[in-house]
This record gives sequence, structure tokens and C-alpha cells, in this order.
Amino acid sequence: MARIVQKFGGTSVGDPDRIRNVATKVKREVDRGNQVAVVVSAMAGTTDQLIGYTRALSDRPDPCEYDVVVSTGEQVTIGLLAIALQSIGVPARSWTGWQLPVRTDGVHAKARIEGVGTEAILADMAQGRVAVVPGFQGVTDDGRVTTLGRGGSDTSAVALAAALNADRCDIYTDVDGVYTADPRIVSKARKLERITYEEMLESASLGAKVLQTRAVEMGMKHHVRIQVLSSFEDVPGTLVVDEDEIVEQEIVSGITYSRDEAKITLLKVPDQPGVAAAIFGPLADGNINVDMIVQNVSEDGATTDLTFTVSRGDMARAIEVLEASGRTLGFERIASDPNVVKVSVIGVGMRSHAGVAKLMFQTLSEKGINIQVISTSEIKVSVLIAEDYTELALRALHTAYGLDAD
Amino acid sequence: MARIVQKFGGTSVGDPDRIRNVATKVKREVDRGNQVAVVVSAMAGTTDQLIGYTRALSDRPDPCEYDVVVSTGEQVTIGLLAIALQSIGVPARSWTGWQLPVRTDGVHAKARIEGVGTEAILADMAQGRVAVVPGFQGVTDDGRVTTLGRGGSDTSAVALAAALNADRCDIYTDVDGVYTADPRIVSKARKLERITYEEMLESASLGAKVLQTRAVEMGMKHHVRIQVLSSFEDVPGTLVVDEDEIVEQEIVSGITYSRDEAKITLLKVPDQPGVAAAIFGPLADGNINVDMIVQNVSEDGATTDLTFTVSRGDMARAIEVLEASGRTLGFERIASDPNVVKVSVIGVGMRSHAGVAKLMFQTLSEKGINIQVISTSEIKVSVLIAEDYTELALRALHTAYGLDAD
Repeated sequence: MARIVQKFGGTSVGDPDRIRNVATKVKREVDRGNQVAVVVSAMAGTTDQLIGYTRALSDRPDPCEYDVVVSTGEQVTIGLLAIALQSIGVPARSWTGWQLPVRTDGVHAKARIEGVGTEAILADMAQGRVAVVPGFQGVTDDGRVTTLGRGGSDTSAVALAAALNADRCDIYTDVDGVYTADPRIVSKARKLERITYEEMLESASLGAKVLQTRAVEMGMKHHVRIQVLSSFEDVPGTLVVDEDEIVEQEIVSGITYSRDEAKITLLKVPDQPGVAAAIFGPLADGNINVDMIVQNVSEDGATTDLTFTVSRGDMARAIEVLEASGRTLGFERIASDPNVVKVSVIGVGMRSHAGVAKLMFQTLSEKGINIQVISTSEIKVSVLIAEDYTELALRALHTAYGLDAD
Repeated sequence: MARIVQKFGGTSVGDPDRIRNVATKVKREVDRGNQVAVVVSAMAGTTDQLIGYTRALSDRPDPCEYDVVVSTGEQVTIGLLAIALQSIGVPARSWTGWQLPVRTDGVHAKARIEGVGTEAILADMAQGRVAVVPGFQGVTDDGRVTTLGRGGSDTSAVALAAALNADRCDIYTDVDGVYTADPRIVSKARKLERITYEEMLESASLGAKVLQTRAVEMGMKHHVRIQVLSSFEDVPGTLVVDEDEIVEQEIVSGITYSRDEAKITLLKVPDQPGVAAAIFGPLADGNINVDMIVQNVSEDGATTDLTFTVSRGDMARAIEVLEASGRTLGFERIASDPNVVKVSVIGVGMRSHAGVAKLMFQTLSEKGINIQVISTSEIKVSVLIAEDYTELALRALHTAYGLDAD
């Protein structure tokens, strides 16, 4: 017997027929003799509609009341799934965020889970009853309704799995797992059987949007084994686990890319202390995230060129901010390019293996692809290249690192 | 300064624009220096949609889970109205049924209110803040969500007004008050300034569907002055009050009618003790309500004819039930007529005035209208007539009792 938390997203519970389909997936785990709790999102589209109502009434709706409104979508689906389960003979009951409770801090619309009451669910499990719990919602210590922000249901599920000390947290979604690369581009991409939390975090923040980052972080912290799998196809998914659970670790687990990049270069910036702070301070104040940064070696000893990337949607605003403070900064001019892509090679194995970056540069060079910016972390090497080369680069790297399917 | 509970129905909060309109009506009461709490229904159509989801999943959805689902509509509107009020400068916050709490019994989907916690709302009022409260929903002592059944929001509002000891409970709806007769039929019908609870109860159960019966009963019990008025037109409504608040009581306050009637006659029923019980017992068992009953004087001393009315939708089933038990009952045959209407004259004044029924019979006779069945209560006289005469009868009676507008 295992204890399992299953989580189904908005598409999976999008209408009564799909909710019935979810119920059969829950029943299967119950029939295997497992103890099951289920976390559900709102029906696809519901949350957006509710948010639309609040925005129609105010440009800046009170976050407390916003939460009262948008948390209702999940209350609908917990009741409906409980009904669907009962109708196929599976004992079930719903628990709202305030009933359990799912305790959060008071940062409305972006609350963080502080604890999950498990007494009721454990009692349900002991009686063979399935507890159906809403994702996304919680309650403060003084009894106000909160929500976790977009995608928070993954986090709810992992937090519940941690609190219940569950053997596994199954996240059902519209993809069937995590791949070595985007299969729409790299036809030889393989589904990974396992991936580490760290690699998953790098993938998530780099554009392989399968699992919410906060959910992965929570899984890593509490050692929750997370499985990503398909709601619609009946195949095993990908397990996200601790590094020591992966026996034969490959050096590189995947190649990812992000098109949401734009490159900005400040030419002939005075090469003196404090200039970086003077540039990046105003950008941070303007809520613009800067990602890769590279500063050239100064040629004349007096000025240097500074290149960095921002997300594509922020490029115009970033240039405005920089031009506004241009006089103080004293650079000569700004060059910008939105037609760039960030390609990354990810793998915890590179901690103990040299030559990973070298193979990347060599491979790209052989294909005649120019590297514009490089950045590295412990388990990843990223390069910025011209967007036109995206597919070529991904396929070449996938082959070079031995990831191609047979 | 007065303390007022305002209640707005589903049509009044049907979309963000209408919610804004509701907010201005609340603001007006606040600007007059009044303490205000507001009760709202779900957006028109929402509850039906939610009920539809539960029915799509089960013929007999668990009432506990049904309540979890259908109670969400009101949670949406309390949050939205709070946002709308704040956006026009009126301090406001929402309170769900479980937050206050609105305590009910455990009869899910048809719960009865047992008490309303007022501490939070009184604190809001003391600070000049408007409390926005959901109609229809409550919570049991063990923390499960309940709903009051269709139309329960009126009851929620009156219960809250009673608990707050409010000066008035304003029920905003899509009619602008209670009339002496249906204005679509009787063009000279007048809007009543005041009406007693008793008259309102008789009107409500007779088809003038303005206020939910349970809400009127609760108002009567707790002496809550209820005003029925329009959400869309800015005119005074009708006050529903204790009899002693009406200084110059007219003998008759209104003429109502109900088309939802069907007449059934059992011919040549044996005239002996126990036969009525033998007839009406099976109907009651079949959940068929019998309204007016008349038994003719026996001609031959051995058999009699028995006539009664049921609601039109129950007629066929009632006949089936009676035919099934026909052999035991021993009547000769069944005659039935769905083309009948019940017309009633209502007024607390008739307690102290004779001749009210006589004037009714005389007036109908003068117009050549045959009375098929008569029934009376302390404050009402009802007759069953052929449906074709409905309009003629209503207009003639309206004039005869001196109710016509100038």
C-alpha cells in the first residue's frame, strides 16, 4: 500500500466528462489498495473569467476580495469530483482550504503555504475515503481566504504530499513527461524516466514549463517524489527526485531553450567602479529582470561595452529607462536585438565531469553558429545565439551529448 | 441614523455593470448616515449552471457536495460587490457564511437558519464599513457548507436583519412593489404602500411571487419591517409590516390568482367514514399536494361526489394514483379539468368585516361566472372558476372592492 497525492489541472477537469475521466484515474489508484488524496484546479477558463470580473470593477481590486472571488473555481471542482467519485462507488468527500486548513501567510493573491492540516485527510484515508482538496487556495490565521497566485495548484499538491508524508505526488497535466528536448523541434528527443529537482528547476525557469517552480522547490525541500504524467494518455511519466535516487546519472539530461530573450548592449560605458550598480539599479526599480550579463575587457582602459539580456516584452521599457538615466551613466549609445534565443545544456552530472561546456562550444562552432553571450551555473551552460539557429543548435547539441533516441 | 439590510437578487447583480449599479444604491444609504449590511444572490444563471454540472455527474448528487458546489455563486458576488463599493469610496468587506457564521441545521440543499453571528458585522458598522454577506449559504456546527434551497437569499437577508435588530430590510428585485392585482391584467391596479405579513403570505402562496414565503414568515416572527422595491427604478416600494403599523387598514388589500390549478372529481364515492382518508392518503404518499376540497351533500344517502384541486403538473399523476387504488375506494369514475383558475380576495380587514365573501359571489354572478369550488380562511376567500374568465373576474372584483386607482 502506498500513499499518493494526485493533482489534476484545469484542462483535466474542464467539463463534467473530463471530471468523470479524472474519477476513473483516482479509482484505479484506490483499487490498487493505495491511500489517495486528490488536488484539483478550477475548470479551465474559470479563473480567468473571475479575474476579468474583478478587473471590470476596479483597476486595482482589493487583493483580499480578489481572493474571495477567484478561489471559488476550485471549490466548484472539489465538490464535482467528490460527486463523480461517489457515483462510481468510490467513497469521497471534499475539503475546502479553510476546512483543512491550508494555512498561508497574508500576502493575498500570492500567498505562501505555511502548513497543511492533515488530521481530517488521514482520518479519511484510514476509512478508505478519498479526500478531494482544492489547489490554489488557503486561509490566513485570522480566517481570510487566500490564493497562491497562478499555477499555485502544483504547489498545493506538493505541500499536501509533504504534509501527508506521501510516497508520491502525481501531477497530471497535458504533457506526458519531461523530455531531453522539445519533441516538436528535436524529433529524436526522449522522455526522461527520472530527473533531479535541480535539473527540473533549471528547465522550468528556462522555458520547459511543465511544473511550477515553487512546487519543485517545495518538493526538493521536503523530498517529495513528484511524477509528471498525462491526464489523457495512459503512459508512465517522468519522476522528479533526489539526485541519489538516480542510479546511472547521465552527464547531461536535457537541452532547453528560451525565445523570451532580448539582448541590450551599452557601448563605451566608462570603466569605473559603481557603473554596474548605476545601470542595473534603475532597471531593478522598474521591475525589469536582467538575466545574462557580460562585460568586455576594456580596450583603452577608459571605456567598456556591457551586454545583458532581458525578457523580450521588457526590451522597449528597459531602453527607455536606460536612456532616461543615460546622461548620468555616460555611455555612448545603446544597441539592442530581440532576435536572440538562449540555449542551455542542463545536467547535474556536469558537477563531476569536465568538458561539458567545451563540447557545447565546439558543436556550435562546427555548425557555424556564433555565440553572443555565455553564462554558466553549477549544473548548466547557457549561450545566447541568433534566433534563426535555434532548431539547428538544439538538434546538433542533442546528438553531440548522446541524447538521441535509438 | 438607521440600521438597514439591503438585499439584491441575481438579476440585480447579473454582470459587473449591474453590480456597479448596486454599489451606488448601497452608497446612497451610507451617505444618508445609515449603517448598512448587504446580502447578495449569485449572478443570474450561475446557480442553474452549477446545479447542471452536479446533475451531469449524478442523478442524485450527494447533498453535502452539491452545497459545496452551488454555494460558490454567492461567494463570487460578495467579493465583487465589496470591490465595487471600495472603488467608489465606500469602505466594505465581504463575509462568507462560514466566516460570520450563518449557522444552519444539517439538512443540506434545504437548510434552515438557526442563527447569524453579528459580532463582525456590528464591528464593521461601528467603523462605518459595509458588510457584504452571501445569501443562500450557511454552515453547520461541524463546519460543512449548506445552502437554503431556491430563493433562500430573501430568508438570509431577513434573518440577518432580525439578528442585527435592523430598522428595515430592503429587498431589491425586478418588480417595484406589491400591487392590489397583477398590473399586466388589471390596468387600474395600485401599488400598496404597506401590506401585512399575513396578507403577504397569502399572496405569496397564491402566486404573487415577490417574496419567498420563508422570508415573510421569518419577518413576521421577528417583526422585521421588509420593503420590496425595484433595483432598476428609483421609486418607493411596498412595506411588509405588522398589522398595527397600518393605520387605515382597507378591508381588502388585493385580488390574486393562480393558474397552476387542476380540478379532479370522484363521482359516486361511497358516503361512509374513512373514505376521505383512503383517498387523500395515497396522494400524500405520492407527494401530491391537495388544495381546495369540497364534498357534495349525498343525494341518495349512499354515495357522494368529491371534488378537489391539485397543481396542474400533478394532475395526471394524481389520476394514476387514484385509479390504482380505485377498486378499494369503490368510486364510479374520475372527472378532471385542467382549465381552471383560483381567484382569491385577500385582506386582514375581513376578520372584522362581514359581507366580503358575499360581495365576491355577487360580483362574479353578475358577470355570469360560475363558481366551481369555494374555500376560505380568516383573511381570504378563494374560488375556482373556468380559466377563460380569469381577466374578467379579476377586473370586476378589483372594481367591486374599491381598489381601482383614480
